[in-house]
Amino acid sequence: HSSLAPLRYLFGPGPSNVPPRVLAAGGRPIIGHLHPEMYEIMNDIKKGIQYAFQTKNNMTIAMSGSGHTAMECAVFNTVEPGESVVVAVNGIWGERVAEIAERMGKTDNRMGLCPSVQTLAKHKPVLFFLTHGESSAGLVHPVDGIGDICLRHNCLFLVDSVASLGGAPLFMDEQKIDILYTGSQKALNAPPGTAPISFNERACKKMFNRKTKPVSYLLDMTHLSNYWGCDGKTARIYHHTGPVSGFFSLRESLSILAEKGLENSWRQHKEVAEYLWKGLEDLGLKLFIKDKDLRLPCVTTISIPQGYNWRELLTYIMKHHQMEMTGGLGPSVGMVLRVGLMGYNCNKANADLALAALADALKVCPKSKA
Amino acid sequence: HSSLAPLRYLFGPGPSNVPPRVLAAGGRPIIGHLHPEMYEIMNDIKKGIQYAFQTKNNMTIAMSGSGHTAMECAVFNTVEPGESVVVAVNGIWGERVAEIAERMGKTDNRMGLCPSVQTLAKHKPVLFFLTHGESSAGLVHPVDGIGDICLRHNCLFLVDSVASLGGAPLFMDEQKIDILYTGSQKALNAPPGTAPISFNERACKKMFNRKTKPVSYLLDMTHLSNYWGCDGKTARIYHHTGPVSGFFSLRESLSILAEKGLENSWRQHKEVAEYLWKGLEDLGLKLFIKDKDLRLPCVTTISIPQGYNWRELLTYIMKHHQMEMTGGLGPSVGMVLRVGLMGYNCNKANADLALAALADALKVCPKSKA
Repeated sequence: HSSLAPLRYLFGPGPSNVPPRVLAAGGRPIIGHLHPEMYEIMNDIKKGIQYAFQTKNNMTIAMSGSGHTAMECAVFNTVEPGESVVVAVNGIWGERVAEIAERMGKTDNRMGLCPSVQTLAKHKPVLFFLTHGESSAGLVHPVDGIGDICLRHNCLFLVDSVASLGGAPLFMDEQKIDILYTGSQKALNAPPGTAPISFNERACKKMFNRKTKPVSYLLDMTHLSNYWGCDGKTARIYHHTGPVSGFFSLRESLSILAEKGLENSWRQHKEVAEYLWKGLEDLGLKLFIKDKDLRLPCVTTISIPQGYNWRELLTYIMKHHQMEMTGGLGPSVGMVLRVGLMGYNCNKANADLALAALADALKVCPKSKA
Repeated sequence: HSSLAPLRYLFGPGPSNVPPRVLAAGGRPIIGHLHPEMYEIMNDIKKGIQYAFQTKNNMTIAMSGSGHTAMECAVFNTVEPGESVVVAVNGIWGERVAEIAERMGKTDNRMGLCPSVQTLAKHKPVLFFLTHGESSAGLVHPVDGIGDICLRHNCLFLVDSVASLGGAPLFMDEQKIDILYTGSQKALNAPPGTAPISFNERACKKMFNRKTKPVSYLLDMTHLSNYWGCDGKTARIYHHTGPVSGFFSLRESLSILAEKGLENSWRQHKEVAEYLWKGLEDLGLKLFIKDKDLRLPCVTTISIPQGYNWRELLTYIMKHHQMEMTGGLGPSVGMVLRVGLMGYNCNKANADLALAALADALKVCPKSKA
């Protein structure tokens, strides 16, 4: 019976294993998407996101969809035809945003890593995009100072924290991030399908003073802000049917993060990552990101060890250790193996399991002579 | 503790109550969105949708989102800039599609109910939209013959069956429907958040021979068809993270429908609806749709009884009977009360509960003198 999906260690870049409390919340009988109790649950989610994002922004909601939905929502709502977008491409996520902007017919300017004053002055973008936790590269990108550059050039600073939230320090308000989003299925350990997003006053001003309507009705923040009770109106009008069970789970996972405390969560991810990195090096493996400070604690990228077929290693580990690790993604395919230990999964015992599985695979899998 | 959402009879237009089997499926430990077992589950879902839609279409998938996501997906993928769309507006859903088409800058032609040969000949649309089960009006719209008219005018026939699937007969292939979609949370009784959709060969031909890319990367069927293994390629490439738990639930709900049998489900909805209608008339209430054959068996619309405040009636029923019924939606607000008995909820015992609640409310709620 194929509905009997196996129990499995989800030690890839996400989704992560979902703790029993969150599973139980998602499996509870549902109520209507417009019932007063649902509004309370949505208000709790809003508060939980504000804490996780370290923001006081009123315009803080969860999208009914994965991180990609939040990504498209951010671009669709803040950019109008003819306006320019600049994207930092440090892995697959930047490429995706560049593609979304291109589909909107925008002047799109991809660039290496950080925005320079020159780039922004030249292209006068309305939006600059950066991925904080680049899970395809295993990189955490420094954010300090970029918000100031964007502010000086009247450009909104949009940050993707899908793979970093809860695992690496991020302070939306202090770091002058205008729009921040994440996903539910990484360090938050909820099932995939919801995506927290927050807009500050500057972003709202741009977004709600458009000349044209966003191309997507579904992702139009005029409607979504009303659905989430963020627009100051008393009546919430039906827009779409939100994923009730998904919101139950997300609320529970945000509760768990708040109970644990963000600082504790960041420290835990750092400690476990360092323990894992040390163990990997002891196995003779090389980490893909040399600079320790640039390594994403949530997802570790390992250079594929010489002579091995990376697909064989992963297949062996899945088959004999019931454990997901993955290969690269987008630009990093064929270059790395990826191990993610996030939230509920993030402890030294799991790091030991991952290391044992890798050690076994390296011993058993055939090595080419080349 | 606000996470303790109350148990409640969801007898509105949806979401419906979720049966224990489906709740249990959704609360099970997750696996990765790209694991082989997940592909099996997705293949099961595909087969379940093919049965529920009565289609052999290969291009049959579930969207990662509510019915609205499927609606936008259908329009975004089949229509290119400058092309015309004709929409039958028989309630709120037609209005929504017209708005989606307008946001794309399309020539949009709204019309009353059925497409006439004249309308299609005049506007030469590439897409004609009709809602089969109009939950805002409580109407089931006849579909026979429309596919032929569309075919003759080289126009795709797009049908929304969110509120009717499983509750009223619909035969995608026989009725020459080119694109059909539904939602998970009505007669299928899964939580909201997934939406079955199917495209026939004609729709695929139009969709995959575009000159421009669809504006949404997330809803681009080129990518989604690969994710669902419908594009004939052996490798599935990461596109977005699907709602794993939502797919577990959807699979289970499609299984339940297949075990019961579509014909049995249609008959059950018809019988229970007729029982409810008779009971409502015995209470002295008037049904909004006079013609029995045009009444949607899933959602019944009742004209608001003279002298009563509809909001008071609904609030009373929610408070004293723990039961959701709703008012109108869009064009029908202030005109109707709506009672939905769908799938798991569809039985005479529940109809009796709904009738008893209404009888009580009509007796207790104050009647204005006017």
